[in-house]
Amino acid sequence: MQTYINPKLSDWSTLTSRPTKEVQDLQKIVFDVFGKIQTEKDQALFNFTEQFDQVRLTSLKVSLEEIEEAKLLISEDLKQAIKLAASNIERFHSAQREEIKVIETTKGVNCWRESRGIENVGIYIPGGTAPLFSTTLMLGIPAKLAGCENIILCTPPNAAGKIHPAILYTANLIGIEKIYKVGGIQAIGALTFGTETIQKVDKIFGPGNQYVTAAKQVAQNFGVAIDMPAGPSEVLVIADETSVPKYVAADLLSQAEHGIDSQVILLTTNEQTLNEIIVEINTQLEVLPRKELAAKALENSRGIVLNSIEECVAFSNIYAPEHLILACETAEEYIPKIINAGSVFLGNYSCESAGDYASGTNHTLPTNGYAKNYSGVSLDSFIKKITFQKLSSEGIQNIGPAIELMAEAEELFAHKNAVTLRLQDLSSKA
Amino acid sequence: MQTYINPKLSDWSTLTSRPTKEVQDLQKIVFDVFGKIQTEKDQALFNFTEQFDQVRLTSLKVSLEEIEEAKLLISEDLKQAIKLAASNIERFHSAQREEIKVIETTKGVNCWRESRGIENVGIYIPGGTAPLFSTTLMLGIPAKLAGCENIILCTPPNAAGKIHPAILYTANLIGIEKIYKVGGIQAIGALTFGTETIQKVDKIFGPGNQYVTAAKQVAQNFGVAIDMPAGPSEVLVIADETSVPKYVAADLLSQAEHGIDSQVILLTTNEQTLNEIIVEINTQLEVLPRKELAAKALENSRGIVLNSIEECVAFSNIYAPEHLILACETAEEYIPKIINAGSVFLGNYSCESAGDYASGTNHTLPTNGYAKNYSGVSLDSFIKKITFQKLSSEGIQNIGPAIELMAEAEELFAHKNAVTLRLQDLSSKA
Repeated sequence: MQTYINPKLSDWSTLTSRPTKEVQDLQKIVFDVFGKIQTEKDQALFNFTEQFDQVRLTSLKVSLEEIEEAKLLISEDLKQAIKLAASNIERFHSAQREEIKVIETTKGVNCWRESRGIENVGIYIPGGTAPLFSTTLMLGIPAKLAGCENIILCTPPNAAGKIHPAILYTANLIGIEKIYKVGGIQAIGALTFGTETIQKVDKIFGPGNQYVTAAKQVAQNFGVAIDMPAGPSEVLVIADETSVPKYVAADLLSQAEHGIDSQVILLTTNEQTLNEIIVEINTQLEVLPRKELAAKALENSRGIVLNSIEECVAFSNIYAPEHLILACETAEEYIPKIINAGSVFLGNYSCESAGDYASGTNHTLPTNGYAKNYSGVSLDSFIKKITFQKLSSEGIQNIGPAIELMAEAEELFAHKNAVTLRLQDLSSKA
Repeated sequence: MQTYINPKLSDWSTLTSRPTKEVQDLQKIVFDVFGKIQTEKDQALFNFTEQFDQVRLTSLKVSLEEIEEAKLLISEDLKQAIKLAASNIERFHSAQREEIKVIETTKGVNCWRESRGIENVGIYIPGGTAPLFSTTLMLGIPAKLAGCENIILCTPPNAAGKIHPAILYTANLIGIEKIYKVGGIQAIGALTFGTETIQKVDKIFGPGNQYVTAAKQVAQNFGVAIDMPAGPSEVLVIADETSVPKYVAADLLSQAEHGIDSQVILLTTNEQTLNEIIVEINTQLEVLPRKELAAKALENSRGIVLNSIEECVAFSNIYAPEHLILACETAEEYIPKIINAGSVFLGNYSCESAGDYASGTNHTLPTNGYAKNYSGVSLDSFIKKITFQKLSSEGIQNIGPAIELMAEAEELFAHKNAVTLRLQDLSSKA
């Protein structure tokens, strides 16, 4: 961890910058794979899966037998844990439902919004070492609550042609029935164009490696929406003398273990706290299975002493972290000053892992500074809000003359005429 | 207008398709202009404005004198009309504010969301013949309500170096102070990168021609968010024997006059209504100033007779129109069946012009079928929702064991450890 003591304000811009990565241009690969999927459909999926996942599948869809088998492979304890998390996530996200409020903006002019679930959504769950069944909960539960009609889950099979049982158990628990063994660019292509087996969707959600990220970006050119732009995970912790150094160290490490490109920033109000936390990091690091990965991530990370918590929050707003932990006793006082962050954790007991798994908030959050302009995934991400309006004869009489004047000033005479005809009829009736 | 009587279901896919346009590849032009703006900043803006708008400006910012002058050029009647519209738009959008609801998902685990305005937003208002001061209201008012700190408005100057007074009057009325004379790709570039005069923003809103649209798309690669993908404006009207043919005709024409690529679809439950409306269209078309434009748009438009209003709504859901007018007396009965639409107008007095100008709903809506996966602009478009969580010692004890199990199953041991350390401390205290 690189440390800085009371850096000058003029250095903040460098200190809040993220490591620039060589973005490999993957667009050509994506267009090639997409092209094959458009023409060869399922056949292309089988071929790419053989090429990239080293397995020749006979069926893309996960069978009921496989789901039943998965249920037997998961311990009762883990099942209960998943159910607790699911229940909290459902409680938090169902409170995001919006009541219909009819607003009479002018007498006789009633306007309101109604929510509709996006009909067809695709959820991508990465494969690899860590089976992200928690992401299955985070995306599947709000999709269900939103009333999305078709929820399609894609995840890559392992070399034996299997999906991790925790992912299958979780998907089944929350009622996702359409689970397909396909990953990478080809999964995103299938969701974008549809094949004989996999239905085309309207919006694609979920994390993934650089190939998946590139494919999601390209998919947008074909009319599909995506959840948000993706980047490496990150946390910023603000600590003072009321923080518990070992907790802060543990929270920083739980971010660092995600990958070597994870970023971790520690802000403290005094040097002693900074040093105590660094000592704790080094101690805890020793016993971590993903030690080397975490150590690598820490090399790019920063520990900075600033003058006050206010200053730390100001720094954080410029950085706009995905996760912000205010690990101090007075955390709540600073809430109004927090402008840019994905998710905020207050006090010594609110560790990031809580939000990652089970507190109920969503863990799909804006990274890479996108907390400045994007929200994390919520029920809103799975719905559209349609505006409705009903004008009575009185309503059009009240606002009609204003519309006529404005339309005329914009030189849109047919717009004006649509009002004039109605007003004429009403005045002749009166 | 091409007409179809009870087409087969197998033809719906063709009938709900939009005319495919040759999308000219403008990316190279955009990257060239963006490159110049990154290096030459203001100087590039002056040069491009001279090149594309045929005027050599001495200052990019609209002066206070120009705003005072604009106020004198607008009639009192139009000012009152704009104020009425502004008041309705403000009323409707301020009702979209969300109260903070703290959800205790498990005893001791409190989670909630808070809204923050996006700090820096750019609003683009096109120039050309029709001065879109109405769009200034539609984007400026929710930006103000959201508490966006910096609202930057860009709009191209005319050959005399002036902005239309209605745009200046409207922007000033709603409190937008930073108005710049710059249009096209160069405006989007300035908002994306910032120059000496124009501040970089986090999100760009507003309609525009194909160059602006292409520039907004490219801007996303540089960390800027945009309101939504753009396409030609469109309306779908559902009419039956309770509709007033001349109103329906007027509504269809007010869409058609937007441009030759506007699309207009009329669905009726009987042939007689269809014919009556077509007769009315031809009559009204004759006296329109933008007659040729509207006539051209109508050539690509469709009038279709279907068996019932239910069937019309089903067709509309596949088409996913920007504007949907249910011009029949029983309109409200069909609301629950409407799944995909930007904004819906109910009954004979709810003309599209009402929503375009003054009813209070937003007129920035998803086109080109994007009503399937995007909402129109609302207060939500100008805010981010940040999740907060605070766990008490009881809270972490209640959900901690579940987090430990889940983190372990995902093989993320530092995530687990962040909880374990806290639980150990608490159990040793007990």
